[in-house]
Amino acid sequence: MEKYKLRFVPLGGIVGVTKNMYVYELYENDKLKDILIVDCGIGFPQEKEFGVDFLIPDIAYLQDKKDKIRAILLTHGHEDHIGALPYLYDSLGRPPIIASKLTALFVENKFKDNNQRLSVARVDFEKIYNFGDFKATFVKMTHSIPDTTHIIINTPVGTIYHGPDFKLDLTPPYGSPPDFYKIVKAGHDGILCLLSDCLGSERPGLTLSESVVGQTFEDEMRKTKGKVIMTTFSSNISRIRQCVEAAIKFNRKIVFLGRSMKQNSKLAGEIGYLPIPESLMANEDDLVKLPPNKICLIAAGSQGQYGSALSKLADKQNPNVKIKPGDKIIFSSDPIPGNENEVYGLIEDLVSQGADVVYSDIADQLHSSGHGNQEDLKFLMRFTNPKYLIPIGGTVRHQKQYENLAQDLGYEKQKIFSLSEGETIWFTKGNQAHKGEPVDTKNIYVDAYGVGDVGNVVLRDRKTISSEGVVFAFLVVDNMGRLVTRPRLVSRGFVFEKEEGKLYQGALKIVENVLKPKSGKVLEMNIIKRGVINNLEEYFYKEKGRRPLIVVDAVQL
Amino acid sequence: MEKYKLRFVPLGGIVGVTKNMYVYELYENDKLKDILIVDCGIGFPQEKEFGVDFLIPDIAYLQDKKDKIRAILLTHGHEDHIGALPYLYDSLGRPPIIASKLTALFVENKFKDNNQRLSVARVDFEKIYNFGDFKATFVKMTHSIPDTTHIIINTPVGTIYHGPDFKLDLTPPYGSPPDFYKIVKAGHDGILCLLSDCLGSERPGLTLSESVVGQTFEDEMRKTKGKVIMTTFSSNISRIRQCVEAAIKFNRKIVFLGRSMKQNSKLAGEIGYLPIPESLMANEDDLVKLPPNKICLIAAGSQGQYGSALSKLADKQNPNVKIKPGDKIIFSSDPIPGNENEVYGLIEDLVSQGADVVYSDIADQLHSSGHGNQEDLKFLMRFTNPKYLIPIGGTVRHQKQYENLAQDLGYEKQKIFSLSEGETIWFTKGNQAHKGEPVDTKNIYVDAYGVGDVGNVVLRDRKTISSEGVVFAFLVVDNMGRLVTRPRLVSRGFVFEKEEGKLYQGALKIVENVLKPKSGKVLEMNIIKRGVINNLEEYFYKEKGRRPLIVVDAVQL
Repeated sequence: MEKYKLRFVPLGGIVGVTKNMYVYELYENDKLKDILIVDCGIGFPQEKEFGVDFLIPDIAYLQDKKDKIRAILLTHGHEDHIGALPYLYDSLGRPPIIASKLTALFVENKFKDNNQRLSVARVDFEKIYNFGDFKATFVKMTHSIPDTTHIIINTPVGTIYHGPDFKLDLTPPYGSPPDFYKIVKAGHDGILCLLSDCLGSERPGLTLSESVVGQTFEDEMRKTKGKVIMTTFSSNISRIRQCVEAAIKFNRKIVFLGRSMKQNSKLAGEIGYLPIPESLMANEDDLVKLPPNKICLIAAGSQGQYGSALSKLADKQNPNVKIKPGDKIIFSSDPIPGNENEVYGLIEDLVSQGADVVYSDIADQLHSSGHGNQEDLKFLMRFTNPKYLIPIGGTVRHQKQYENLAQDLGYEKQKIFSLSEGETIWFTKGNQAHKGEPVDTKNIYVDAYGVGDVGNVVLRDRKTISSEGVVFAFLVVDNMGRLVTRPRLVSRGFVFEKEEGKLYQGALKIVENVLKPKSGKVLEMNIIKRGVINNLEEYFYKEKGRRPLIVVDAVQL
Repeated sequence: MEKYKLRFVPLGGIVGVTKNMYVYELYENDKLKDILIVDCGIGFPQEKEFGVDFLIPDIAYLQDKKDKIRAILLTHGHEDHIGALPYLYDSLGRPPIIASKLTALFVENKFKDNNQRLSVARVDFEKIYNFGDFKATFVKMTHSIPDTTHIIINTPVGTIYHGPDFKLDLTPPYGSPPDFYKIVKAGHDGILCLLSDCLGSERPGLTLSESVVGQTFEDEMRKTKGKVIMTTFSSNISRIRQCVEAAIKFNRKIVFLGRSMKQNSKLAGEIGYLPIPESLMANEDDLVKLPPNKICLIAAGSQGQYGSALSKLADKQNPNVKIKPGDKIIFSSDPIPGNENEVYGLIEDLVSQGADVVYSDIADQLHSSGHGNQEDLKFLMRFTNPKYLIPIGGTVRHQKQYENLAQDLGYEKQKIFSLSEGETIWFTKGNQAHKGEPVDTKNIYVDAYGVGDVGNVVLRDRKTISSEGVVFAFLVVDNMGRLVTRPRLVSRGFVFEKEEGKLYQGALKIVENVLKPKSGKVLEMNIIKRGVINNLEEYFYKEKGRRPLIVVDAVQL
């Protein structure tokens, strides 16, 4: 028997791109000894059209193992890597969190928003951290947000290189280039398994440096007579910094629009990551007094989100800022797949108000992906020279392409594990790896009503409504369960017409029929409801061939 | 006073791209102690139209220092890095030569061709070599020829990373990828100066791997019904190997055409770098018996060189091979600047015979440069993290672009030394570097007649002839220097017409006039010649406004 075994359990981030949370379990003599968690992010569901805001990882499987969790390590400050912490931290037993400067600040701020106090330890890049029998060192890496890290996790079974979201940026606009020495040294000392970002695995070549975008900003500022409005992800501090630097060069006052943009720029400013001369800081109210060519707005809403700062501008809802001919709007981000309609709709609105809009379809070098292309990914493979590979942070398509790249480099297919969420890998001392039993995970949705309120049932309902509509039946009954007044029926997204209509009258009769007193027996409310639903479903299907969602509510007097 | 000083002396390769030869001199208490030489290649002159075959480095300055030369290290097997050895090795005092396998074999073969015996030591990549107070280690690197190396030269003054011709090829078709660990480790330990290839400094992105070309070869072999004829540099063993591998897949017999191609493929085969099954090896004579779709020819002459194997094919001079419709000719190399006319002329000839010719203007991925693009160059800067930088192996234009790249990475301009041939750099213990007195070098030309025969005078003559023409005057005189017969005049490239023409007759008279006996004095031959030349020059210029080269020869009876 092996004395030590290591199990890798991805609770998210594997095929959904987002909701990154990875669990490493170290077993000694088949007994769980230590757990190390990397990242704890929210997910962006495909079901967003049904009103779900986001997903969080399902940590049910960790519930009876909390006491083994030694730490949570965070790789960078993007929501899909840190956003779930406020929801899950208590349930994880509040272990220590270690993160680099900006990441830590974002997390602490998140908890402050929820009126919680939390102190995140700042990464010491020189330090070898001991978490039970795990040893971890952080590696300086580059991505679209400063202070991004990778993590080298040393275990008695072998060394794991945990390499999520990255690109090899040799000229990052802020901070250091990747710490090639630490990476290559780890590879030289021996890496058992590389977990690597794979989102860029379809794109040839090397990803552009973030720095190229700075030149574009300058060019646009130079040739624009009106306001310059730049939009990007509010977490993209590097990009925002470059826009700010260009604005400073052309003496434009800088105003941040949108809650997330204001908050993130403030936090980044506090730690010196976004220096702006006092004389160029301005508020929305100041804008009316300024000539357009002295204004640079940095606005949230690059994905066309409803209600975002940029949407409000396009909808003429911002009392302080109007879009005028001569203004330039720079989209320094690509639409996330699925958001194209919203983004292009927004661009249409802006263009129709006379603005000059530049976006990546019509201009190069407005945006550089934060995720490494094929060559970045291959470099990391060569640097770390691992025995096994696990692509993370991409879809099945990206995993497949990553496998191809690894095979180009000479890896055999069986050394590459493309996992689904919850699928586990066992590593054993003999440098062997194999798939283990999967861990059960389910989707946990968060929306305005709170965590987990929105289960699969609610989602199914929303799907039904979206295609079939909904009918509400409202009943007022006495304590015997008998109707006191005629039922009220209301529908939305269904073919119901006026009250005098045939379908409405028929439905009314059905409901009244169900509630007809049966020889003095008290009708139980649940039975009433189920009866109404079943009978109405049958009726509507017979009459109209549709199956709207039937909702019954009753007041018992 | 500094105890140790290091001087770097480029005897070539600095702005001429080719003719690479670099001298490192270590001084102890201002006394020259040890010399290390890296590479010793031929140059390709711009004056090639004047019949010069190539240039070799001018080592005059080393003549009184031979006894300090500890070794010659060779980085790879291209002519512009090894080709001058047969001409200079004796003059350098025959120091030990160290080179990797293929390079060593090429050099030994070169000497064998000249009937000399030489044994080149094979690189041991694990070894730290001691050459006086120099310590050198070789680094595995990638380029367009297998067994390419870089060299880390450790001196009492600091460490030099000598990084000529390279690209970072993560998937080389033969051999190992670059030894990132050794490079990055050296950078971590501290590099005083990086000498880097800069030829690709104008091209953005990362250079394509040699491997992409292999897929193209396969695709072309698959769809071609006729013969496949591939041409590239005969030293590009990796490329040749990929063509051979594709031919093997499609069961085409392989024939090498051209002396250099035959020789290099034979040498590479001897050390296992070019394995070809016995059943697929063929000779030119076998070709007539084979169906076209079972033939793959690999021909020298990709630069359109006159008399090369490919030119002979195009000129229907090869008795065994005829170009036919359906044949495919693959140019897997780009024209070297200056050779465009020859290459496109050759393509025309081939196309007009019905062949399908593919070359990089019309097809991607037929050729991948051996020299790193901007990103390759930046990676090497980041990896080695040097204090100073010296771009080598490019023109002034490339040096300038390399400076820009380094500045993008944060280097100050004064840390980058773009040198001319013979310009020297002094490195001192305080990690300082500054330009020193230049070393005098002159062009030494080699052509069919031998080394150095072709001096600047000859070249000037050739230039004159090419623009003005030449006139030969042939005299037969007696022992008194008197004409025995009428002089003979012959011209080429000049306006001379028939013998009865006015100009000819005039010139004849001029010559006869010079040789007219002056009161019995014996005419000295040199004086006769000078007189003829001066008088003819004057005459032709007066008559025609031209200054042809005048050549006078005489036979004294």
